Amino acid sequence: MNKLNICIAGIGNVGSELIKSIEENKSYYEKKSSFQFNIIGVSAKNKNKNRNVDIKKYRWFDDPIEMSKLNDCNVIVELIGQEKGISYDLIESALNNKKHVVTGNKALIANYGKELFKLAEKNSLALSFEAAVAGGIPIIKTIKNNINLNKISKISGILNGTTNYILSKMEEDNLSFDEVLEIAKEKGFTSDHESKLDIGGYDAAHKLTILSTLGFGSVLNFNNNFIDGISNVKIEDINFAKQLGYRIKLISETSIVNEKIFNFTSPKLIDYSNPLANVGDALNAINIETDHLDNLFLEGQGAGGKPTASSVLSDLYDISQNITFDNLGFKVNDLKEFNKISSDNIVNRYYVRIMTEDKPGVLSSITNLFSDTGISVEKILQLPENVKLDKPIPIIITTHKIQKEILTNVINKLEKLKFVKEKITLLPIHDN
Amino acid sequence: MNKLNICIAGIGNVGSELIKSIEENKSYYEKKSSFQFNIIGVSAKNKNKNRNVDIKKYRWFDDPIEMSKLNDCNVIVELIGQEKGISYDLIESALNNKKHVVTGNKALIANYGKELFKLAEKNSLALSFEAAVAGGIPIIKTIKNNINLNKISKISGILNGTTNYILSKMEEDNLSFDEVLEIAKEKGFTSDHESKLDIGGYDAAHKLTILSTLGFGSVLNFNNNFIDGISNVKIEDINFAKQLGYRIKLISETSIVNEKIFNFTSPKLIDYSNPLANVGDALNAINIETDHLDNLFLEGQGAGGKPTASSVLSDLYDISQNITFDNLGFKVNDLKEFNKISSDNIVNRYYVRIMTEDKPGVLSSITNLFSDTGISVEKILQLPENVKLDKPIPIIITTHKIQKEILTNVINKLEKLKFVKEKITLLPIHDN
Repeated sequence: MNKLNICIAGIGNVGSELIKSIEENKSYYEKKSSFQFNIIGVSAKNKNKNRNVDIKKYRWFDDPIEMSKLNDCNVIVELIGQEKGISYDLIESALNNKKHVVTGNKALIANYGKELFKLAEKNSLALSFEAAVAGGIPIIKTIKNNINLNKISKISGILNGTTNYILSKMEEDNLSFDEVLEIAKEKGFTSDHESKLDIGGYDAAHKLTILSTLGFGSVLNFNNNFIDGISNVKIEDINFAKQLGYRIKLISETSIVNEKIFNFTSPKLIDYSNPLANVGDALNAINIETDHLDNLFLEGQGAGGKPTASSVLSDLYDISQNITFDNLGFKVNDLKEFNKISSDNIVNRYYVRIMTEDKPGVLSSITNLFSDTGISVEKILQLPENVKLDKPIPIIITTHKIQKEILTNVINKLEKLKFVKEKITLLPIHDN
Repeated sequence: MNKLNICIAGIGNVGSELIKSIEENKSYYEKKSSFQFNIIGVSAKNKNKNRNVDIKKYRWFDDPIEMSKLNDCNVIVELIGQEKGISYDLIESALNNKKHVVTGNKALIANYGKELFKLAEKNSLALSFEAAVAGGIPIIKTIKNNINLNKISKISGILNGTTNYILSKMEEDNLSFDEVLEIAKEKGFTSDHESKLDIGGYDAAHKLTILSTLGFGSVLNFNNNFIDGISNVKIEDINFAKQLGYRIKLISETSIVNEKIFNFTSPKLIDYSNPLANVGDALNAINIETDHLDNLFLEGQGAGGKPTASSVLSDLYDISQNITFDNLGFKVNDLKEFNKISSDNIVNRYYVRIMTEDKPGVLSSITNLFSDTGISVEKILQLPENVKLDKPIPIIITTHKIQKEILTNVINKLEKLKFVKEKITLLPIHDN
């Protein structure tokens, strides 16, 4: 029986489940792959941490780099997850020592992947990363292998489970962002450290960077992202959006507009008819639009030990079978250096919430200012039932497509008017 | 430049779009695959039919079998779509003449695939069929390649677009089955001939047979299916189901229960929380449950020229790259002959609509009969607002899990009672 000798660096949630799966399904994987999945080394920060697998039976390495130098090691599984540091050094050392690599490290790939993919290609090695985007959803292989003669026009998705959980829970239980964030931390969905990446939109943007390279052959470049997080999303806006037929979701979208790259992560209003609007809990989901497919939609668990281990396993399987798709679906030298779209060229429909005094003439002053500036109003929502004496009342306006700068100018003018009582809220509306 | 020499048999909607894609994207496909996709022969029933591609530039064959004997042909694309007949003969001849085959023919594979896959395996050839299930959704490759170390526990889906269109449209516009069927025919979604396969549930069951083989390694056997079509679905039931939090969809489900195969296609009530409930129009969708994934959900266009051509193209790509997954994900000899589950072992929750006289004691007579027989009632819905004098009123009951035979016995007894005015309606409720 052929052996696939595996070394695993990082034994948290995903690493433990990976080890468990390999232990429990030994004969099944052998039958499927004609290979014995054989763990020959493990490494982690803490050897004696309580885990749901017994790692004592495996050869232990304090320094994971040592594993990458073992003669009989075929593949390094990197699950440490540092943006650079030891994760980068390990992968680099593995590739230099002619070992295949499987990783779930989106931040590293998005920021420093370029050189590593070059190295992998030079040495004809796999650098596989199904686990890096959307956990258990096989989105990398779907784009790279299953629909790879399609010309992709747009990929948009919900790529971060924690923020989707928070937004879903806010709506469901009518709670504020801060209240739900506390619950998410209690449930272990996000730590203080992670929550910055999650809530700030950076984690989603890391993943979007990778999808953008797979979809359009763009050089991996995290700096091409526009990123806005969810910490300013108010429960009022979720509720008003609902009345207009929208949910608010953290949407990441990538496309090529006039030969420039458009990578955009932001909370957005999204129409109920878009399947992304129905993605609840901590799930992830992706829409793919191509020349042949109006829309291909995938939904599943975007994190967690077992689902993510499933993606690592599928990469290990491909390595065992020597399946030779290019790691990125393109030769590294064929990747194109796209310029980032300038913000002038980003147009969106917008949701605008203005808190004003409840007095005659206010609405017409606002709409006049909009029309004088060439901003076309789509809908206006006034909610008289919410009126309390002397309290500001909300005026909700949705616009047709407009450049953000033009809208921001009007907003700035409005905020200087006496009857506008609070900072105005602005959210883009997702184009279906 | 390497050439992939392709012969296409059957130039309807899918065939035309395939030819168009190959013509329009020649250099793109070359870049992606390092192969020239080269059409060297075409065949169809009618040479002079009006098509959106000009087939005169290709070598014409009155008899497609002749194409399979061409020395320089690498792959036969079978898009004729006969359940046996010329489609079978062509594929057999192609495989005997050492040509790869790509087909979209679900009926043929479900009924007569076994021998053909044996032949393909013997000659180390591809017999690829991504286009046979769910049109443009790459469900075959997802199961066979992307998550192939997962142990699948259940696959359930909406596998027929026409019936999903009909059921969605009935609900949306509050129309009867017959009214919507006429619209579907006018729109060209289904012909008289096709509509029997569609509406009867047979087309979905063909596809389910294939998914069941991919998921569980069962021998392809169409006779293992329980099949119920949608022609008896009433708009009343769609509306009552809605009040209970369900949609009615034609659901196909496959799993292994006590080592027996359970392939079941039937209109079912499905909870709004299940993503299948939100699949509208003529879309297809599939839930996959595995040991690692609570649920992986895919949705997309299940028919139509371009989406289906996308699946044919992905098979052609794999053939050009010599990607050697087994055609079915299993060696043909490893496929297991599962026994069909006996109907005694099928348990479902059920929706029951009983039209009765509006008089005292009726409801208690019914519920007594249910409880005497050990059928546990989950919910009762009575709708007084619908009452018209002397008209029968509906009593809606949902049950807990029960064997259909036991329920049918009670139904038979009920239908003999004087206060029951119509044939009782019975629909299974899908288990999330």
